[in-house]
Amino acid sequence: MFYEHQVQTNKRVELYNITTQVKSTIKDSGVKEGICHIFVPHTTAAVTINENADPAVKGDITNEMNKVIPFSDNYQHAEGNSAAHIKASLFGFSETVIIKNGNPVLGTWQDIYFAEFDGPRRRRFVVKVIEG
Amino acid sequence: MFYEHQVQTNKRVELYNITTQVKSTIKDSGVKEGICHIFVPHTTAAVTINENADPAVKGDITNEMNKVIPFSDNYQHAEGNSAAHIKASLFGFSETVIIKNGNPVLGTWQDIYFAEFDGPRRRRFVVKVIEG
Amino acid sequence: MFYEHQVQTNKRVELYNITTQVKSTIKDSGVKEGICHIFVPHTTAAVTINENADPAVKGDITNEMNKVIPFSDNYQHAEGNSAAHIKASLFGFSETVIIKNGNPVLGTWQDIYFAEFDGPRRRRFVVKVIEG
Repeated sequence: MFYEHQVQTNKRVELYNITTQVKSTIKDSGVKEGICHIFVPHTTAAVTINENADPAVKGDITNEMNKVIPFSDNYQHAEGNSAAHIKASLFGFSETVIIKNGNPVLGTWQDIYFAEFDGPRRRRFVVKVIEG
Repeated sequence: MFYEHQVQTNKRVELYNITTQVKSTIKDSGVKEGICHIFVPHTTAAVTINENADPAVKGDITNEMNKVIPFSDNYQHAEGNSAAHIKASLFGFSETVIIKNGNPVLGTWQDIYFAEFDGPRRRRFVVKVIEG
Repeated sequence: MFYEHQVQTNKRVELYNITTQVKSTIKDSGVKEGICHIFVPHTTAAVTINENADPAVKGDITNEMNKVIPFSDNYQHAEGNSAAHIKASLFGFSETVIIKNGNPVLGTWQDIYFAEFDGPRRRRFVVKVIEG
């Protein structure tokens, strides 16, 4: 079962919550036990998991990443978004979550985020649900 | 087949070897060919793979990460563990290893580590074994 | 279906394109719908996805990573390649791509790269294709 979703990000760098979309995709699939693979088909965005309670965590993550991988640093890529390419490779283009009793197995404080590093943009992510 | 394991980490930042637990989980599952997905349901810990021989490698990894993502850096999150949240997203919350002849396919020097970034704590990780 | 591939890297740090090998492996498997898991059985190399068009992106990624994680930084590991171990954990040892109609689902600008951090060397990566 293959699904495609769209997101409209709002900032240059942003963790955009996609947990609701992932959960409803698993529900739609009807799969009770298996894995759910989320894949981002871009090169300047990624997917990650992190805290769902205090929104300050998201800001700390994006601010610190902007400091560690600066927007400008004598990059050669003419488009000017090399920092976004680097951050995307560091965060990774996919997440796999386990499905149990029809729900993703997530920790109490975990939500799933589309990691925008070169927005705002219209983006998409794809999901594959495998029974097993 | 779904499994849950507990670990008691000993330091604030530590790579804790879970290879034995993963191997025995695969054995328990009886699966000979497939994949084994390891997932960490926390937001300040992760899972990674790295060297199993010289223990100095683990220290070099944790020391350097503590330097690249400092414990204090004007973070806004009141709990004071934003560095751990950032490191966890960088290392990632899951690993998937291939199962062949009933064993995980790992390189000669590879072991699997629970990456603690805000310990010491009682932690857990979950494992899903899929035949295929 | 399990496959093993070899690569000969050419530089100390290099993103080596393995997309063609991955695509032909999926074709060989005959699987039309499923997932393809790529795993690097080393501790100083990784696998990532990134831009396939402007080659300057690869150079920006490797140059910046060499700056963020310096080759020398009072590491204790006697082999002198701790930076490579750290970068490998940051990039990650596996990628999972979705298979649809017999092809990997990749974005327009995405290719799959073996990330060499301690080359040049003869390396290998393994691939598992799962139908589902």
